[in-house]
Amino acid sequence: MTPPVIPADLAAWLDAHDAEAMAELHAFLRIPSVSARREHAANCAAAAQFVADALARLGFAVAVEPTPGHPIVVGEWRHAAPGAPTVLIYGHYDVQPPEPLALWTSPPFEPAERDGRLYARGSVDDKGQLHLHLRALAAHLAVRGTLPVNVIVVAEGEEEVGSEHLAPFIERERARLACDAVVISDSTMFAPGIPSLLSSLRGMAYVQLDARGPAGDLHSGMYGGAVVNPAMALARLLATFHDADGRVAVDGFYDAVRPFPEAVRAQMRALPFDDAHFMAETGVDALGGEPGYTTLERLWTRPTCEVNGLLAGYTGEGAKTVLPAAAMAKVSCRLVPDQDPDAIVALLRAHVARHVPPGVTVEVTALHGGRPWRAELRGPIVDAGRRALHAAFGREPVITGEGGSIPVVGDFERLLGAPVLLMGFGLPGENAHAPDEWISVDNYRRGTRAAAALLDEYARAHAGAG
Amino acid sequence: MTPPVIPADLAAWLDAHDAEAMAELHAFLRIPSVSARREHAANCAAAAQFVADALARLGFAVAVEPTPGHPIVVGEWRHAAPGAPTVLIYGHYDVQPPEPLALWTSPPFEPAERDGRLYARGSVDDKGQLHLHLRALAAHLAVRGTLPVNVIVVAEGEEEVGSEHLAPFIERERARLACDAVVISDSTMFAPGIPSLLSSLRGMAYVQLDARGPAGDLHSGMYGGAVVNPAMALARLLATFHDADGRVAVDGFYDAVRPFPEAVRAQMRALPFDDAHFMAETGVDALGGEPGYTTLERLWTRPTCEVNGLLAGYTGEGAKTVLPAAAMAKVSCRLVPDQDPDAIVALLRAHVARHVPPGVTVEVTALHGGRPWRAELRGPIVDAGRRALHAAFGREPVITGEGGSIPVVGDFERLLGAPVLLMGFGLPGENAHAPDEWISVDNYRRGTRAAAALLDEYARAHAGAG
Repeated sequence: MTPPVIPADLAAWLDAHDAEAMAELHAFLRIPSVSARREHAANCAAAAQFVADALARLGFAVAVEPTPGHPIVVGEWRHAAPGAPTVLIYGHYDVQPPEPLALWTSPPFEPAERDGRLYARGSVDDKGQLHLHLRALAAHLAVRGTLPVNVIVVAEGEEEVGSEHLAPFIERERARLACDAVVISDSTMFAPGIPSLLSSLRGMAYVQLDARGPAGDLHSGMYGGAVVNPAMALARLLATFHDADGRVAVDGFYDAVRPFPEAVRAQMRALPFDDAHFMAETGVDALGGEPGYTTLERLWTRPTCEVNGLLAGYTGEGAKTVLPAAAMAKVSCRLVPDQDPDAIVALLRAHVARHVPPGVTVEVTALHGGRPWRAELRGPIVDAGRRALHAAFGREPVITGEGGSIPVVGDFERLLGAPVLLMGFGLPGENAHAPDEWISVDNYRRGTRAAAALLDEYARAHAGAG
Repeated sequence: MTPPVIPADLAAWLDAHDAEAMAELHAFLRIPSVSARREHAANCAAAAQFVADALARLGFAVAVEPTPGHPIVVGEWRHAAPGAPTVLIYGHYDVQPPEPLALWTSPPFEPAERDGRLYARGSVDDKGQLHLHLRALAAHLAVRGTLPVNVIVVAEGEEEVGSEHLAPFIERERARLACDAVVISDSTMFAPGIPSLLSSLRGMAYVQLDARGPAGDLHSGMYGGAVVNPAMALARLLATFHDADGRVAVDGFYDAVRPFPEAVRAQMRALPFDDAHFMAETGVDALGGEPGYTTLERLWTRPTCEVNGLLAGYTGEGAKTVLPAAAMAKVSCRLVPDQDPDAIVALLRAHVARHVPPGVTVEVTALHGGRPWRAELRGPIVDAGRRALHAAFGREPVITGEGGSIPVVGDFERLLGAPVLLMGFGLPGENAHAPDEWISVDNYRRGTRAAAALLDEYARAHAGAG
């Protein structure tokens, strides 16, 4: 088989309309669609409308579906040749909170290009990666007046807060969303120049722990030593979540873990991964984690339990001698197949109940959860994805895992019975949930080409398999 | 010996001028002299001037002595009969930060009387207790035109932030501050109606721990499990500060502790203290602490290690999946004789160095310290204090300890070679460092009488002992 290439007609159109693409992406990124903050609800609605308008301009039948949270945009184009398959492209228009603002080099909602990177909140997660599919569709429709497959686009606005309303929507709209494959670009390539197909995602169980002791803050001198300190009790509780070696010490935590096949582990170990480079990238002088696994295995194949936030007592300048009435921790577990988020929350509750000392109560509030996922790596959409990425980047993609969570992947597969292809264009160090988030402009451009080629490749592979 | 009484002339004057006293105290409390906050420097200066003006009106020679921090007010009245002793009355005009403001029933700097309590930041700690001495001096001078002893008043403005500049001042001004006894009212009575002489204070070693890991906040999915989490590392570090039973587990922590005499412990156990009442007062359903000691012993005679504040990562609404770059804890140890604050900070540093995991650094910053103190309970000033309290409250005082710290007590004793009498009029539950701080109005009034009687009793006791 000859090496795949990007169809010349599509490539030429994309080249010619590059400035238009970047301008449209900038406009999309300027909308502060922070789904976690109630005060940004109107901005989330504006971002949904932005996607809807873009699809409508391409000739899609578009609906902006309200939910109890932020709306879901559905665009449908069903004019492909008889027998052509249907592909569902999913992305999200909401973004993480931008705080702490002081750490951004340029403001989070003013896109700025520096050294080949486009900086903005949402640039890589996920507005840029959603937008490149819209550009691929635009290229096909502009050049050929048609698409080689039927396309459904689903863009939601609650991915960063747990996609609470997406799965019920998919379930209710099963018939309308029926498809042969789902394509999602919301992930990271293994390294610059190395296109990647993502074969596994970790799930998530996120809880808040509220430790409460005395009715009010107390003077630490007059009460300290006899009244149990909720902040110290919370620290001691958090310390019970791991054993001395770094394994999670919550009873039953690993019971449902299905080990990754040795072949997959071997392939992961063969990837050109350098701990020293990873340490330099993150700015640490040593790594840690569960014993017996490489860094990539820890990130991709093993579950975790992390503190995401802590707050108690006096945190200002200087010394205040307060015995705080309460202490809060945000704790999230990353999950791997076949751990279940609800079951993990139940284990955390039981663990907390066993370890909280007398004199303090600890309330456990589940904030959100998502199932882990592992792909079958075969079939027409996987073959098409391999060839499209090969064409765009000039080399075969590698197979990777990822430590992050896209809870909806499992929902799509389960509810629609269609395989999911995860074809991401982010890069390590992209600061997806941190200040100075960026996307490689070159990756964005190659992404538009890969997404355009994918539709041709999938139409061919599906016909060949059929 | 007949039971002591408040001299009738002084009592009558204090009765007649009660409204004036309360108005003046209200004015003092309205000044937000928060020493911990730079923006309140002018208010601290105003509070110092308030004290200076009050002393000047009484005929004291007054100086407002600048320091690199807030000023020290010194008032001197040296016209007593030949052979009369000199007593130094110490108090502080600065107050704790009032935050969290939302938890105050009435604003912290708008004094409000409700149900026999005067609510305001500083009402009991220590403006009210300093002011009652000014009123006692006023009574003597108004009624008799003289004082039975020479009096030096020292009012500082940095007690709540560690009294950094007071000890050097005392040392430099040893000759000017030379005295036969020091009297301080900045403590709490054992219970309503039970006057108390305080025989011991805990010291303090207060540090801030700054744990730092990656150079910036990271996505907890993409990095979690391989990059050591500074918030979790800090929690695990804090958990090493105590053993499972509640003893402080910092190596060498108890080495310098000189046990309280069995007679003192026996007297403490005989005090009418009720754990159930203490639990109800603080709003907890169980107590904790070092095994083998009663609650009062834990509070008065044993050292502690407490978390006063925690801050890391995301602490807002909802879920943010961040692996924080840093985590902060404020930690303070209460000390008992003969623990030394600097030595304890050194032990904490060594403990942290031994327990911090690879991949994280923890910086230990000493914020302030104070020596613990224990009194000899004999001599003219103690006899005078017993009788003055007996006269004001109609019963003998009990001997108590206190868990809080007044670091300067030891400094006065060491630098001036004079015994210190701690005669406090606060009450349990007074919220000294918390919202809704209050002083009992009845205690304040009895305090003015006790302070007035003390000068007569001390002149007599000193003459008798001489």
